[in-house]
Amino acid sequence: MLKVPPYVHEVKYYECDRMGVTHHSNYVRFMEEARIWWLDQLGYGFERMEAEGIVSPVVSISVNYKHTTTFKDRIEIEVVVSEMSELKLSFAYTMKVGGKLVCTASSTHCFLDGGRPVVLADRFPQLYSAIVSTR
Amino acid sequence: MLKVPPYVHEVKYYECDRMGVTHHSNYVRFMEEARIWWLDQLGYGFERMEAEGIVSPVVSISVNYKHTTTFKDRIEIEVVVSEMSELKLSFAYTMKVGGKLVCTASSTHCFLDGGRPVVLADRFPQLYSAIVSTR
Amino acid sequence: MLKVPPYVHEVKYYECDRMGVTHHSNYVRFMEEARIWWLDQLGYGFERMEAEGIVSPVVSISVNYKHTTTFKDRIEIEVVVSEMSELKLSFAYTMKVGGKLVCTASSTHCFLDGGRPVVLADRFPQLYSAIVSTR
Amino acid sequence: MLKVPPYVHEVKYYECDRMGVTHHSNYVRFMEEARIWWLDQLGYGFERMEAEGIVSPVVSISVNYKHTTTFKDRIEIEVVVSEMSELKLSFAYTMKVGGKLVCTASSTHCFLDGGRPVVLADRFPQLYSAIVSTR
Repeated sequence: MLKVPPYVHEVKYYECDRMGVTHHSNYVRFMEEARIWWLDQLGYGFERMEAEGIVSPVVSISVNYKHTTTFKDRIEIEVVVSEMSELKLSFAYTMKVGGKLVCTASSTHCFLDGGRPVVLADRFPQLYSAIVSTR
Repeated sequence: MLKVPPYVHEVKYYECDRMGVTHHSNYVRFMEEARIWWLDQLGYGFERMEAEGIVSPVVSISVNYKHTTTFKDRIEIEVVVSEMSELKLSFAYTMKVGGKLVCTASSTHCFLDGGRPVVLADRFPQLYSAIVSTR
Repeated sequence: MLKVPPYVHEVKYYECDRMGVTHHSNYVRFMEEARIWWLDQLGYGFERMEAEGIVSPVVSISVNYKHTTTFKDRIEIEVVVSEMSELKLSFAYTMKVGGKLVCTASSTHCFLDGGRPVVLADRFPQLYSAIVSTR
Repeated sequence: MLKVPPYVHEVKYYECDRMGVTHHSNYVRFMEEARIWWLDQLGYGFERMEAEGIVSPVVSISVNYKHTTTFKDRIEIEVVVSEMSELKLSFAYTMKVGGKLVCTASSTHCFLDGGRPVVLADRFPQLYSAIVSTR
């Protein structure tokens, strides 16, 4: 099993709002950063995804905010595959600052070829195998 | 029952990504815009909320992406109260472009006084009544 | 002479920073919104620009911040053509809130065809004429 | 003379626009990141600035875009003090990707105490000395 270490996002000044805390919409961006980084670690960087014609839109997300974070906080984001079906892939995200849980989240994705949903294992078997190797 | 019309967000150029579509994180911002606007229609604009010391953080969100949108699209966002409990308030969002459903979403909020959760009906009875009037 | 009225941007909650004011980077986005809107008024909406193959990157910008703005402020942005040369076009922006000057700015653009700079008057004569009509 | 190494910003997916390039407004955010990092290297991190009551708004910015950048590019940003007067401080920014110049920029700042401009050398002599040490 391939163990991917957490991705770290350091909160920027411009990511904080009037209340002095990280604006809640930005966590969705941190999730994307962590997911892209996770795929990078699997050998599926952006260039390869693009070269192989893999398009994987976000179908849904959910985010649970546990504690606020702020400027300069280093958010450690652990990404794991929570569900795999023929057509969909879901990630679970655990975000911590200094060991304290600040946010949990999930995202679900499908895979497209020419705009139509495809079975990941059939159409992109290498990516499928790489993802399975993390479970 | 007070019927609040939909809020309209016209997608900006800088809200679209490399795929030419509205970046999925921005819908969370549109939800906030629509929610603030909805409270405005109830007579609970930002100034009044602030004056009455009402602080209402986002506890959780979920978003289901149905169809992509893009630059210049006018997204009509309908906001309704989907759940009210002593300590929490949930909104459901329905987003359409030209009558076509593009996104559904929900958000849950609590209410704080001096950083501690309070019962909305007790601490902010007028806001509570205003919200009930929309159901 | 075609007189284009000011574009209005109402400051969003998520556009404000820890100091409670509109983050300075957002004015660059407001300039883009106002510029696109200005071109719309000239009959050069995005679809037509795209259909005619007009690509016009930003060469430079400058922004002078006079007074802070904040959530709910309605910023009126007046756009005028400040300079036209064979290869470049510059806009000047005047931003006011309730009649008070809050920001002045400028942006310079070139025009590309297949990635190479072109003379606007030669390559896109109708857009050139439309722009001249505002001076 | 204290030599501060360049700050590195890796371009995020969500920072790119419909044209597939880093949206021009984001460079203003990268400037802020680099400036804050530069002050950190001088021993003037955010906490110390805040503790000493130093507030330093942006008075003006200018940005010259030389070459586009895109997702995954590592932008190296060199920050130097370009001008110091009694009331104002200016930074010059040089941004490179793989040694190629992509953007030059400048920003000017003042210093406030209780909302009023102050002479940096008088009001914040240690920060003044730290900045002088980089020249």
